[in-house]
Amino acid sequence: MMNKEKAILLMYCKDKRGILAEVTNFIMGNNGNIINLDQHVDQDENYFFMRIEWELEGFSIPNEKIEEYFSTLIAFKYSAWYKLHFEPNKPNIAIFVSQYSHCFLDILSRYEAGEWKINIPCIISNHEKFRSITDRFGIPFFYFPVKKDNKKILEAEELALLKEKNVDLIILARYMQILSNEFCAKYPNQIINIHHSTLPAFPGAKPYESAFKRGVKFMGASAHYVTADLDEGPIIAQDVISISHRDSISDMKRKGRNIEKIVLANACWAHLNHQVLTYNNKTVVFD
Amino acid sequence: MMNKEKAILLMYCKDKRGILAEVTNFIMGNNGNIINLDQHVDQDENYFFMRIEWELEGFSIPNEKIEEYFSTLIAFKYSAWYKLHFEPNKPNIAIFVSQYSHCFLDILSRYEAGEWKINIPCIISNHEKFRSITDRFGIPFFYFPVKKDNKKILEAEELALLKEKNVDLIILARYMQILSNEFCAKYPNQIINIHHSTLPAFPGAKPYESAFKRGVKFMGASAHYVTADLDEGPIIAQDVISISHRDSISDMKRKGRNIEKIVLANACWAHLNHQVLTYNNKTVVFD
Amino acid sequence: MMNKEKAILLMYCKDKRGILAEVTNFIMGNNGNIINLDQHVDQDENYFFMRIEWELEGFSIPNEKIEEYFSTLIAFKYSAWYKLHFEPNKPNIAIFVSQYSHCFLDILSRYEAGEWKINIPCIISNHEKFRSITDRFGIPFFYFPVKKDNKKILEAEELALLKEKNVDLIILARYMQILSNEFCAKYPNQIINIHHSTLPAFPGAKPYESAFKRGVKFMGASAHYVTADLDEGPIIAQDVISISHRDSISDMKRKGRNIEKIVLANACWAHLNHQVLTYNNKTVVFD
Amino acid sequence: MMNKEKAILLMYCKDKRGILAEVTNFIMGNNGNIINLDQHVDQDENYFFMRIEWELEGFSIPNEKIEEYFSTLIAFKYSAWYKLHFEPNKPNIAIFVSQYSHCFLDILSRYEAGEWKINIPCIISNHEKFRSITDRFGIPFFYFPVKKDNKKILEAEELALLKEKNVDLIILARYMQILSNEFCAKYPNQIINIHHSTLPAFPGAKPYESAFKRGVKFMGASAHYVTADLDEGPIIAQDVISISHRDSISDMKRKGRNIEKIVLANACWAHLNHQVLTYNNKTVVFD
Repeated sequence: MMNKEKAILLMYCKDKRGILAEVTNFIMGNNGNIINLDQHVDQDENYFFMRIEWELEGFSIPNEKIEEYFSTLIAFKYSAWYKLHFEPNKPNIAIFVSQYSHCFLDILSRYEAGEWKINIPCIISNHEKFRSITDRFGIPFFYFPVKKDNKKILEAEELALLKEKNVDLIILARYMQILSNEFCAKYPNQIINIHHSTLPAFPGAKPYESAFKRGVKFMGASAHYVTADLDEGPIIAQDVISISHRDSISDMKRKGRNIEKIVLANACWAHLNHQVLTYNNKTVVFD
Repeated sequence: MMNKEKAILLMYCKDKRGILAEVTNFIMGNNGNIINLDQHVDQDENYFFMRIEWELEGFSIPNEKIEEYFSTLIAFKYSAWYKLHFEPNKPNIAIFVSQYSHCFLDILSRYEAGEWKINIPCIISNHEKFRSITDRFGIPFFYFPVKKDNKKILEAEELALLKEKNVDLIILARYMQILSNEFCAKYPNQIINIHHSTLPAFPGAKPYESAFKRGVKFMGASAHYVTADLDEGPIIAQDVISISHRDSISDMKRKGRNIEKIVLANACWAHLNHQVLTYNNKTVVFD
Repeated sequence: MMNKEKAILLMYCKDKRGILAEVTNFIMGNNGNIINLDQHVDQDENYFFMRIEWELEGFSIPNEKIEEYFSTLIAFKYSAWYKLHFEPNKPNIAIFVSQYSHCFLDILSRYEAGEWKINIPCIISNHEKFRSITDRFGIPFFYFPVKKDNKKILEAEELALLKEKNVDLIILARYMQILSNEFCAKYPNQIINIHHSTLPAFPGAKPYESAFKRGVKFMGASAHYVTADLDEGPIIAQDVISISHRDSISDMKRKGRNIEKIVLANACWAHLNHQVLTYNNKTVVFD
Repeated sequence: MMNKEKAILLMYCKDKRGILAEVTNFIMGNNGNIINLDQHVDQDENYFFMRIEWELEGFSIPNEKIEEYFSTLIAFKYSAWYKLHFEPNKPNIAIFVSQYSHCFLDILSRYEAGEWKINIPCIISNHEKFRSITDRFGIPFFYFPVKKDNKKILEAEELALLKEKNVDLIILARYMQILSNEFCAKYPNQIINIHHSTLPAFPGAKPYESAFKRGVKFMGASAHYVTADLDEGPIIAQDVISISHRDSISDMKRKGRNIEKIVLANACWAHLNHQVLTYNNKTVVFD
């Protein structure tokens, strides 16, 4: 929206009296203009969370020193986890895709329209199916035919590619392969997957079939960070739609595609805007 | 709405060519005026379902013979399950309640307002807490302090009472006791429970606490017929609301009460209007 | 789903006793296998609506005679409006677009994925902006720089093109020009527009700005058939999302794009599947 | 929830650098423990909003002086509107009701269950209909048969009663009389009404009938502060449900009652918890 340079700080720690004032004073005392502050206290578990955004023009601490100063003066004292981002910034995003195009094309559309300010240095797939459409968008396509027996080798190649391309975020756009724990560990809270059910209901394969069998009256989709435990990572976004006995499995799949792509996009948007904090395997998503 | 006498037939069977025409002809050929017809074919499992409603004025088959004729001429041929209801009819409803009043008072309000045309011959509770408010509505209150060791005896007394009162439907309005299998078996598809989660997510006790811990972005409530398997019966109605990190467990409970009472009421309404068919542990709910 | 040839009949008329049986008998008496029947009676206004779908294999009336027979034997008698469709059939769809790509690219994605079985013989735009992306999908792009003073001439050219391409349905995918009454009259119930508000709230231009100013807590989108009265045509589909004071106009636009494209797609899907009937400036949408 | 004494400050002003820090310092510098802070900047209109909640134990400024100090030291400087509340506090609420009981009984149920910590010193009605049920809850019932010709006199009596009872909030629970401008002016942002449509769609009488006629696919309810302009006051809460051609006007009324009572309750809850700020005829509702 605006092009002025700004910093965004995400942090959390055990809640202690005075933490909020100390952080705001750190910024305002150094002549930073706070343009957004979101704060949350989880009173059930006694955590303090904050997202604070300020303009860097006139800020007395040089950009490359902010992290050090914040760490020394505040984070250390409160044993706080934190992450500092600068904007504007154009992150590098890799999309993993298999044989369903709806999430994949939805992301390309947002990229094409300039809705998301991102680079897409690579599309990675275990099928050749979407090479042609990827080409049309002028994005490099990489084919890794991952199978059980070559998984280790191909994942290593994928990781090398991701490293070379400086990838900040990996989006699994209905990617039908399970990433190894080692792979996941390289990109903590940087891999977003879309699962086609309202987790924790119907994890695993064929959630629409299971939902149909159970006769539920709502179905949905969940976007989550990928962790070693399949479908168990921190949920970033969910959405649901009502269904009835009139919906066949085929109807559920068709309707499901609509929420899958929107939920995945919403989760990525929140991540890209540094609105997501993760703790205890769940998320705080500031809006 | 209207006071003309009418019949409502619910039926289902394996789908066969001609079944729809045969039933409509049975009614119209005997001079019945069909005022509502809902039909559904589950193409994934090949079942045919129907709900048909017709005015009895001028119908050539006397009321007390309709069931026999239908059974002989049609149900037998198609191995169909069916149920015949007559309207107007004022069913007898028993409410089981423990210590939460929101669903309970919501039902009493609908009864008081005449929204539901029902009799409430008894409120049954394992606590004395709501005797006074029940009295104010002029409804008999029965206290059965069910515990592990007296369950068998007290359930027998409850069953005797329900039989004496000619109860057609039992509503568990946040009743915190598990009914025995024997009890459930006496009222198949006639006991409706409200569970405070979107089943199958978070069955069992403390669903709000579990949902909080899992960090879901939606929560809900499910009304279902009670079967021997706890929280596993056919789901009649569900609803959801979005939640965020801002919602404490206490907020979730407060918001949850709103959907619990509405979902329970919607399920009971559908049941009372003979809109619900059960098969394969799920429901068809015509609307 | 299935490729067997079938017919779909949509009809409505003033409700009269016997109409349902007469139609089902017309089909079954001629050896048609009914695979879907939806029927609705608007009891407030006394209309009867039906959608009936049957397999043509073995049907005794030849396809090209069905309409004549139905018209003579039934429609005439009941003064019924009706429309007969045959499947499989691949309709020709024209998309009108201006400068927003989200709805447009969403439709192209569904086309590309084979979700919609359609031909897109032309994209029509009053801007050159999307020529390049259209080219990439291999679809002919036509530029008609409609202005006040050339509208009559260019609309005539557009109509000629649409006729030449045998267009069955026109989708206005955020097309920012108002079609003349004459244009609309050529394609009754064949032009679908997406309006970015929950009509009738906020018709006309800048609905998000108006919604922001009014401080509503929900916003939405409406897909409707285009009639001479702007934003007043029969609504086919709507959806909403909750918003709060935290949503700026820019947030509303971003969130709005998500529902706009889904609502438009849902309306088009219903139309393409012959599920929509129009009467009294509103719709029956069978599902 | 907790019984510790605390203060809640609501404020807003034109956004200026430093305002947030100044307020937090005012509280923490005087040894107040902030337990909740919500802040919002309307960047489209450049307003700053805040809700801040702190524990009073150990706070150096005595309760009766807080307002004066805040006014002098901060509010004056920023030309800020503000309101200070103390908790725990049990507000006095008057309910106005006519002939529909659903919202009315829903509030009484929350009161009875202790969900809302309030006094209800009077129920006011222009009908005798609900005297008996009110009596059962032990609440004084006042009958004011307001008509065109006696409105002035009876409103004066009502106002005298409200004053005598020290009423803090008036809830119009489907009260079917329009309050005069003079009446409204006595209780600015202290009268909450429920309107049975998603305003601004379908203001005025018979919204369900209008929604039916227009053929909308969603309907809803809106709770708003009452101002001199009927149905034009600031919206506090809204909710919607999807409807279809299957819903008769009578179905819409039945379904509508469910959302009316929940939306009204949600709006009152937010008001009672001092979460609502009003500006430019709209609301900020912190959660």
